[in-house]
Amino acid sequence: MIKVLQVGIGPVGFRVISTLRERRLGRLVGAVDFDLDRLRDASAESGAEGASSLAELAPGERPDVAIVTTSSSLEACMDTFRALLDRGMNVVSSCEELLYPWLRHPVLAAELHERAVRGGARILGTGVNPGFLMDMLPVAASAVCNRVERIEVFRLQDASTRRLPFQKKIGAGLDPAAFERMQQSGSLRHVGLGESLHFVAHYLGFDLERWEETLDPVLADRELESGLGPIPAGHAAGVCQIARGWIGERCVLHLEFQAAIGLENPHDRVKIEGTPPLDLVLHGGVHGDEATAAMLLNCIEPLAAAEPGLHTMATIRLPHWTPGG
Amino acid sequence: MIKVLQVGIGPVGFRVISTLRERRLGRLVGAVDFDLDRLRDASAESGAEGASSLAELAPGERPDVAIVTTSSSLEACMDTFRALLDRGMNVVSSCEELLYPWLRHPVLAAELHERAVRGGARILGTGVNPGFLMDMLPVAASAVCNRVERIEVFRLQDASTRRLPFQKKIGAGLDPAAFERMQQSGSLRHVGLGESLHFVAHYLGFDLERWEETLDPVLADRELESGLGPIPAGHAAGVCQIARGWIGERCVLHLEFQAAIGLENPHDRVKIEGTPPLDLVLHGGVHGDEATAAMLLNCIEPLAAAEPGLHTMATIRLPHWTPGG
Repeated sequence: MIKVLQVGIGPVGFRVISTLRERRLGRLVGAVDFDLDRLRDASAESGAEGASSLAELAPGERPDVAIVTTSSSLEACMDTFRALLDRGMNVVSSCEELLYPWLRHPVLAAELHERAVRGGARILGTGVNPGFLMDMLPVAASAVCNRVERIEVFRLQDASTRRLPFQKKIGAGLDPAAFERMQQSGSLRHVGLGESLHFVAHYLGFDLERWEETLDPVLADRELESGLGPIPAGHAAGVCQIARGWIGERCVLHLEFQAAIGLENPHDRVKIEGTPPLDLVLHGGVHGDEATAAMLLNCIEPLAAAEPGLHTMATIRLPHWTPGG
Repeated sequence: MIKVLQVGIGPVGFRVISTLRERRLGRLVGAVDFDLDRLRDASAESGAEGASSLAELAPGERPDVAIVTTSSSLEACMDTFRALLDRGMNVVSSCEELLYPWLRHPVLAAELHERAVRGGARILGTGVNPGFLMDMLPVAASAVCNRVERIEVFRLQDASTRRLPFQKKIGAGLDPAAFERMQQSGSLRHVGLGESLHFVAHYLGFDLERWEETLDPVLADRELESGLGPIPAGHAAGVCQIARGWIGERCVLHLEFQAAIGLENPHDRVKIEGTPPLDLVLHGGVHGDEATAAMLLNCIEPLAAAEPGLHTMATIRLPHWTPGG
């Protein structure tokens, strides 16, 4: 049984803890969160010792791996990552910027790699998005191509089926002015889209000369029901965020993320213009929280089998579901 | 530039040679086939030296990798594989039985692994089917699942767009009695479906208690045009081959391959019953010969980065398209 330390007990972290038990994949030997209520819930679920910080964690069984689900920001996660790698612990994290940390934090990426190698440990950023749908999947699909001219990826989600905090996060219900204020504050942005773009560009050898990310509201074209109350026509039903990359005048990558209340025909899609062309659709899409917890757990073994260092979804062997013990 | 030896210059082998040049991925340093016309074509395409057998190949530049596209049968390929591994050469092959050789040839599989390790070389069976659509793709897709109950995979091809020998191979145009005679002779069977089934079962930890493979004609429901001439209604338009695996009374794997003239809505599909459920469709399907040549070439680098030994598509790092030099 793999011994797991869970750091961060938000919705995804809690799901990791309960799934670990249900799948009998491993045993939780510790849980860390600054929130005492969450720690209590985690202990009730798992029986594991909790602590409000890594430093306060009672010395007990040495975990084989730490799963870190605390923040999208690599800077915010760095002290945790440093402490874990220095203790020689493997780290799997949903930190979105860690999917491809060379984009915004090349110096921190180099430090993580160095610390991991020195500690004989490995570290990986993953999840379902980023981590699979908009990056690993298009890269994997390209393996059957002899020529790739352009890749488009779409993640179109009906936010009605997601948590209320998620619906709030995408600005559902806001009037256009309030949406713009929230957008200015930066809190609307799905973190990781730029990382997915550069992950694909890197592995496909697309030497991007220019890239951009745009964010706009998806406006309700009629009154919509939502968990946050009715959304009047003309107000925001959610967000449309697009990342694009160019080589010269040619847009070679287009990654589009939409999450909106009442969005029809939700799906994930990878289109490759090339030889042969590919049009891959995941009908109905893939549920975010569930799939992210799954990917974090399913990457523990492939990461452990890799060389010490900073890894990506393209440098470990193929992750997949495995039955528990 | 990677130095490549091509062994077998049938339709896929020839495509590998021409694609290698077009993509500027590497340089052909030798070609082997028993057919002198094919050797002449290969030399005209590439300028490389040809030989009618490995033994007769002029000692020249040492290849980094051999691509072997001679036979579906592992037994038929063994002497070639032995000779290449003993020379310490990496081998990527479209030999269908090599995708998962433990199914029908566990002793040969052990021998290949041992020889590869001894020679400091690596060997891998791949292609688009088997190699990707009905095995690697469902295994990779399962990575976002916390529970997998059952997997169904469909490859439904319109054979009208394929080579005439392929159309002949699937029995297109035969009356039911002739189809049955051809079926008895074993020459109708798409080799590799059982290997795909066991590849998926192995990596997903499905301990199959029983499995079977069935093969039936797809009958023309109206007169069909084909490159082999018109097909009367009631004659075979192609084949439907299904492999299934059970745990107890539960059919946990269903792999279905159909190739028929005039088949409507051709596509590849992976359905996972689990948490979350997945329904992945490649609309229009993926062209077999082109994609197989692509996968053979795109696996050269990931295989070279792996430990010496016998590998599978789940033990090498993620293959993907790369631009040439």
